[in-house]
Amino acid sequence: MGDPNPLPTTLAAALHDRFGARFSTNAQVLLQHGRTESHHAVRLPDGVVLAHTTEEVRAVVRLCAEHRVPIVPFGAGTSMEGHTVPVRGGISLDLSEMNRIVAVNADDFDCTVEAGVRRQQLNDHLRDQGLFFPIDPGADATLGGMASTRASGTNAVRYGTMKDAVLSLRVVTPDGRVIRTSRRARKSAAGYDLTRLYVGAEGTLGVITEVTLRLHPIPETVSAAVCGFASLHGAVSTVVQTLQYGVPIARIELLDDVQMMAVNRWSKLDYAEVTTLFFEFHGSERSVQEQVETVAAIAAENGGGEFRWASSQEERSRLWKARHQAYYAALALRPGAVGWPTDVCVPISRLAECIEATKADLARASIPAPIVGHVGDGNFHVVFILDPDRPDERAEAERLNAALVERALSLDGTCTGEHGIGLGKIDCLEHELDEGALDVMRTIKRALDPQGIMNPGKIVRL
Amino acid sequence: MGDPNPLPTTLAAALHDRFGARFSTNAQVLLQHGRTESHHAVRLPDGVVLAHTTEEVRAVVRLCAEHRVPIVPFGAGTSMEGHTVPVRGGISLDLSEMNRIVAVNADDFDCTVEAGVRRQQLNDHLRDQGLFFPIDPGADATLGGMASTRASGTNAVRYGTMKDAVLSLRVVTPDGRVIRTSRRARKSAAGYDLTRLYVGAEGTLGVITEVTLRLHPIPETVSAAVCGFASLHGAVSTVVQTLQYGVPIARIELLDDVQMMAVNRWSKLDYAEVTTLFFEFHGSERSVQEQVETVAAIAAENGGGEFRWASSQEERSRLWKARHQAYYAALALRPGAVGWPTDVCVPISRLAECIEATKADLARASIPAPIVGHVGDGNFHVVFILDPDRPDERAEAERLNAALVERALSLDGTCTGEHGIGLGKIDCLEHELDEGALDVMRTIKRALDPQGIMNPGKIVRL
Repeated sequence: MGDPNPLPTTLAAALHDRFGARFSTNAQVLLQHGRTESHHAVRLPDGVVLAHTTEEVRAVVRLCAEHRVPIVPFGAGTSMEGHTVPVRGGISLDLSEMNRIVAVNADDFDCTVEAGVRRQQLNDHLRDQGLFFPIDPGADATLGGMASTRASGTNAVRYGTMKDAVLSLRVVTPDGRVIRTSRRARKSAAGYDLTRLYVGAEGTLGVITEVTLRLHPIPETVSAAVCGFASLHGAVSTVVQTLQYGVPIARIELLDDVQMMAVNRWSKLDYAEVTTLFFEFHGSERSVQEQVETVAAIAAENGGGEFRWASSQEERSRLWKARHQAYYAALALRPGAVGWPTDVCVPISRLAECIEATKADLARASIPAPIVGHVGDGNFHVVFILDPDRPDERAEAERLNAALVERALSLDGTCTGEHGIGLGKIDCLEHELDEGALDVMRTIKRALDPQGIMNPGKIVRL
Repeated sequence: MGDPNPLPTTLAAALHDRFGARFSTNAQVLLQHGRTESHHAVRLPDGVVLAHTTEEVRAVVRLCAEHRVPIVPFGAGTSMEGHTVPVRGGISLDLSEMNRIVAVNADDFDCTVEAGVRRQQLNDHLRDQGLFFPIDPGADATLGGMASTRASGTNAVRYGTMKDAVLSLRVVTPDGRVIRTSRRARKSAAGYDLTRLYVGAEGTLGVITEVTLRLHPIPETVSAAVCGFASLHGAVSTVVQTLQYGVPIARIELLDDVQMMAVNRWSKLDYAEVTTLFFEFHGSERSVQEQVETVAAIAAENGGGEFRWASSQEERSRLWKARHQAYYAALALRPGAVGWPTDVCVPISRLAECIEATKADLARASIPAPIVGHVGDGNFHVVFILDPDRPDERAEAERLNAALVERALSLDGTCTGEHGIGLGKIDCLEHELDEGALDVMRTIKRALDPQGIMNPGKIVRL
């Protein structure tokens, strides 16, 4: 678990003076901030600060900078690659109570929220104004965390990722300055794209405290369906052809036979336990009808079965809840197990090949490992379901994961479509990029965080 | 015009040895690379190299780095803010003959092109495969230049800007290394977003030599229309409501009365000389029909006149050619004049206010200044039509431009939606961003180009 080092006395005293009970070294609080929902080893921070304002974040950063103590931003703790684990100790800076919706500009289709606002809270708030925020990674993550990891998820095929959704950020830099990365205009060519620099930087270049987001009108009609396929190849061909026809599909998700079994058990459903696509269509009534006709015809030609429809809000919620709980459903396949979720993303023409080879690998494995994917983007996940007390299983997952990443890279794909690098994929990133590109990343990190205090040990080795 | 300084003799000799006639100090060639299509003063480079490969670009960069001689990447020379003017002399590195389409991956909806490939060349090449590249800034720019300036244009309201279109770049860094910024997957969370760092960096951080782009299927049906409005407010309200209804409109362009007069004269058309919207609809036949019905109803409620349709390819070409030649049409209002094109972008709810106040300003001005805009994004241009021999007119344009930018900034907009900073908007950028954000930009520039040889004098003062 790693030993917490006591913080420098003057730092601890200063934090105590400023934050009172919102600065904590309580064992339970440290544990909450040192563990994650996945397989990464727990490492406790030396203290936790619960910040309420950008000014407070700045104060923490300045104090930590003075003492060269690491700062690890923390939101909902739902990231998958150990982003929030304070591997070099220091302060876990918890932004979850910075959860104010600062402004909604309905006519501009944008809003500004504090970093600790969660996805569902935002959508609940927006509903009455006929707007929604589409990016949906499954977990009810904070918007600050989603920006930091460049999150995407089920709607990305139509609405893009956090890269596309963020208009502007407020960031506290490692030297304790507050900057705003850009204005609220929908597009800008004003200098280097600082917004996209911090989106996906995983808290290694500064602390995001406010996020301005693009919103979308709630579609007039939403309809969802589930369809089983005779073969993986047929399911993936359905995806490719749907995109080729220019169908503006909102979601197109793949679950393999293992995952469908897990979902049926966990969510008490009775879907066929075969490769399955979950679809969602957004648009006017006529447009949705046309999309549905097109996709149903494509699916039928590719060995798809009947479409099972979910047109009411309630049925759709049940369907997507089942999809979103795929991770917990997978874990429940093996009580007491921990999950090692991994993700890769490949050009879509290589997706069937990549999933098929991966399934062949997994068929020979001793651990269960379901597959789910945002296949419209060529992105899929494998979750290795491990007995935490068996090092051989961890070694096997490591080997399978490395093989998966190598396969994705050999197909001109990336080692992570959406989970990020964090702790878990630093080696993978070194395989993915050439030495020059890695050096550019290292140069940026060193230039913008010369003391190396911002979430050290993530993304790149220095 | 600035005096060309002779290059260091050893550098000139080395370039001559390597490039023969493709290294030039001919006065005509220097002039072609020292002037632009807009009002920026001519400054000659000290030499021009016409590169044919990434390896040649690398050789030039290495030689220039050795001699600390500036390098200014040059494509089609169509940028608006003096990006290609070698204000500190050095080598103009012309990539226009690097015009090979390296690969089209039709099933993945992407392609890779050399930086000198032009937009129209690419679309001609793609047509037979049912694909197109949507970003269209009007000018037949190179893709490398479009990436460098973060170009957008008429289709951006639906298809986004170069920020969204670029999947990956090949870049020669200022120390002469060749890097690839990412893989070809549609999305990635693999470390800092180097792709977006170089998109819009205006050649100040390295030389883009290859661009991998997202493509789109050619829509089944395309239809375009022109509609005049009784008031500017009615035209802008039509735009806002169209977006609120979630209509996936492909283009929605505004031309004011002055610009319509110029367009009628230049393109020999007979549109009413009032505030006008140009629309384009993409989709299936049914979808386009529905979009058209919705938008026609919205326009009618907002004082729009009859729609004049252009449904055949030929009519559409004529319509968009008229729109694309708006700049030349504006220049022709005053023979012998030069154009000073400027652009701002504001949140769309502030657009009517911003254009109205600007028109009031222009009504009092002594120089003609038509307005055109990509209003779906809140982005519009003013072109000041100047007599080049009258310093008072230049001073007036300067004052009007400064007032326009201040107005846009006061509405939380940006000093440039798409033209970029270049030479012309360095002061504006300093007004737009806080000192901390500017410092982050300067830090990045210094870290990645410590010798300051890459397109010096652009974007930020060091």
